[in-house]
Amino acid sequence: MANALIVHGGGPTAVINASLYGAVMEAKAHPEIEHFYAAIGGSGAVLREEFLDLLTVPQEELELLKQTPGSAIGTSRDPMEKDDYDRMAQVIAKYGIRYAFFTGGNGSMDTCGKAYEACVRAGLTVNMVGIPKTMDNDISVTDHAPGFASAARYIAETTAEISQDVRSLPIHVCIIEAMGRNAGWTTAASALARSGDGDGPDLIYLPELPFDEEQFLRDVKRLHEEKGGVVVVASEGLKNADGKPIVDPIFQVGRAVYYGDVGSHLANLVIRKLGIKARSEKPGLAGRASVAYQSSVDREEAILVGATAVKAALAGENGVMVGLKRVEGKEYKVETMLIPIEQVMLEERTMPKEFIHPNGHDVTDAFVEWCRPLLGEPIRKYVTFKNRPLTKI
Amino acid sequence: MANALIVHGGGPTAVINASLYGAVMEAKAHPEIEHFYAAIGGSGAVLREEFLDLLTVPQEELELLKQTPGSAIGTSRDPMEKDDYDRMAQVIAKYGIRYAFFTGGNGSMDTCGKAYEACVRAGLTVNMVGIPKTMDNDISVTDHAPGFASAARYIAETTAEISQDVRSLPIHVCIIEAMGRNAGWTTAASALARSGDGDGPDLIYLPELPFDEEQFLRDVKRLHEEKGGVVVVASEGLKNADGKPIVDPIFQVGRAVYYGDVGSHLANLVIRKLGIKARSEKPGLAGRASVAYQSSVDREEAILVGATAVKAALAGENGVMVGLKRVEGKEYKVETMLIPIEQVMLEERTMPKEFIHPNGHDVTDAFVEWCRPLLGEPIRKYVTFKNRPLTKI
Repeated sequence: MANALIVHGGGPTAVINASLYGAVMEAKAHPEIEHFYAAIGGSGAVLREEFLDLLTVPQEELELLKQTPGSAIGTSRDPMEKDDYDRMAQVIAKYGIRYAFFTGGNGSMDTCGKAYEACVRAGLTVNMVGIPKTMDNDISVTDHAPGFASAARYIAETTAEISQDVRSLPIHVCIIEAMGRNAGWTTAASALARSGDGDGPDLIYLPELPFDEEQFLRDVKRLHEEKGGVVVVASEGLKNADGKPIVDPIFQVGRAVYYGDVGSHLANLVIRKLGIKARSEKPGLAGRASVAYQSSVDREEAILVGATAVKAALAGENGVMVGLKRVEGKEYKVETMLIPIEQVMLEERTMPKEFIHPNGHDVTDAFVEWCRPLLGEPIRKYVTFKNRPLTKI
Repeated sequence: MANALIVHGGGPTAVINASLYGAVMEAKAHPEIEHFYAAIGGSGAVLREEFLDLLTVPQEELELLKQTPGSAIGTSRDPMEKDDYDRMAQVIAKYGIRYAFFTGGNGSMDTCGKAYEACVRAGLTVNMVGIPKTMDNDISVTDHAPGFASAARYIAETTAEISQDVRSLPIHVCIIEAMGRNAGWTTAASALARSGDGDGPDLIYLPELPFDEEQFLRDVKRLHEEKGGVVVVASEGLKNADGKPIVDPIFQVGRAVYYGDVGSHLANLVIRKLGIKARSEKPGLAGRASVAYQSSVDREEAILVGATAVKAALAGENGVMVGLKRVEGKEYKVETMLIPIEQVMLEERTMPKEFIHPNGHDVTDAFVEWCRPLLGEPIRKYVTFKNRPLTKI
């Protein structure tokens, strides 16, 4: 008999609870796991010994995990020091924990790795496995990680819907701000909004490229003359050629510097410099919390990754993160893989060059092909009568 | 044999196309309507004679109207002068139009009324009927109007989702900016996000009440101490006691004054004055364009209202707008009514006193009861383990 522990770290996604569901369901299939402790509130909760045994939760409540945004067990951004890891090892020993799972992004994989080292120092045998989660898709080695596909679906559907709105009342330039400060994956996914009849985003600005304000204004002006309404999707993390954010710092509290919103900044530029009406939308947290736009592929992969982590730990794996690898072939298919945690700790993956269009304001077809299957069912089909031949009498 | 005309005005909603669907389907059932012209781009398109005969559109494309955001036939905010109305009457005569439908908010009902007067001046017999649409719910006399319920569902679901996110990682105050500059109906609907276990919005600020910054900061501070994460929903149109917007004008182009975003302004206040982390989300146009959060009740009522307008015009009604009236009884049920257009022209309905909580930052139970049935199916159920008794060893 042995116990297991699961800890969530960092910002939640639309499917972090689906991975939790996958892990719990797998644990339930293994009677050798007596208690499956969830840290209620991230890594700090481990130090405070704040646990809930997930095996005591009724099945009908576990089922709700698949459609619950946020993290049902709570998560944190608690900074962890060496002493904290040693304390964590003590708690792990006290609770008879033989299997431990850290769900999170790069930072959580770092926590997982360091917790593992602390357990080794304490002479404990604990199989530690990382469960990736990210809305930004900035985790290395794995093809993608749970959470991204739902964020991608959200921005694609939302951009498609807003594009219909703007096309039907083409009086302004609409800037949609997308999350992902350094990695442009989510911003890029807005390209999937295009159905091929001129809708969807007209311009896409990724944080991987320096932002050229003059070129932006020229492109907006040209498109406004052509189409009336223009839809722009811009990353919240856009930077100038000198690497500084395109938005000025608006104030400072202690060491933290606060910047204005990129979307609102770009809309103001369009109004002031071009005299064209503009507005901005910033779905923000809605983009990682929306369940209606959750991708079914993402949800299933999240469950798979959670379950695979439990299987791997029980099979004796250690210091690894579960990743996803595409299987070669015409149909989209993934299989899981185990990646040594040191390969992913703190490393931030940005968009590769072959996914960024050389025109500087778009993605390539290769990106669209790579991204499309992740969204699950095709995005909704819309109809417009604005581009039909008119009836003449 | 006679022809009909339909014109969209103002900002679209998630169901303006559903009303169009209802109108076309009803027209198809009446062979005396030979052509059903849609103005392709609002009232200006009537003057330019830019029409599409909707009776030539294949049925499978009409079906897509029910799930297409924006306006499939286009809409406008074209300002109309007396000469324009006279020109409109000429076009109506030229195209043999016997029935005309204007879909829109207060402004469009004004257009409808004035177009009617112009037709009378020109000696034409045209039955004109208004089809209401609004995301802000600011149209008078009718219990509510198509478009609002989907906007209400959007903000309720989105606030519920963001609340799960904030509860799971309670490190900041999150301000959600809701649309509706003078009428707080959409902002108020965020209250429907509450499931009764402490989730949902903590504070709701309606534009009907003067905003008290000091009280706001005190309430946020108290809630932050209690809960860590705080969710605030604020109308984009908040004003101070002197009736001026709480956000300063940031710049002026010609006669137009541009203000910053209310959400971002309030988040900055929290950071600067309380030293508490804060962020803002502004779904903006997504809140009126989202199809995934479209209310099924709204969609059905929109179809009903569109169909009723056509029936009314064919029955000889004139100068009326179709409204919705609740039928007394335990179950939610509406019936249509016809309202003289002069009763609704340009009049803006705001939230009545009995729907605004005396504490100044909430709605009443009466509002929640009034609003709940409009959302259609109950909003999603979520699970959290953060409020359970911990497992102790």
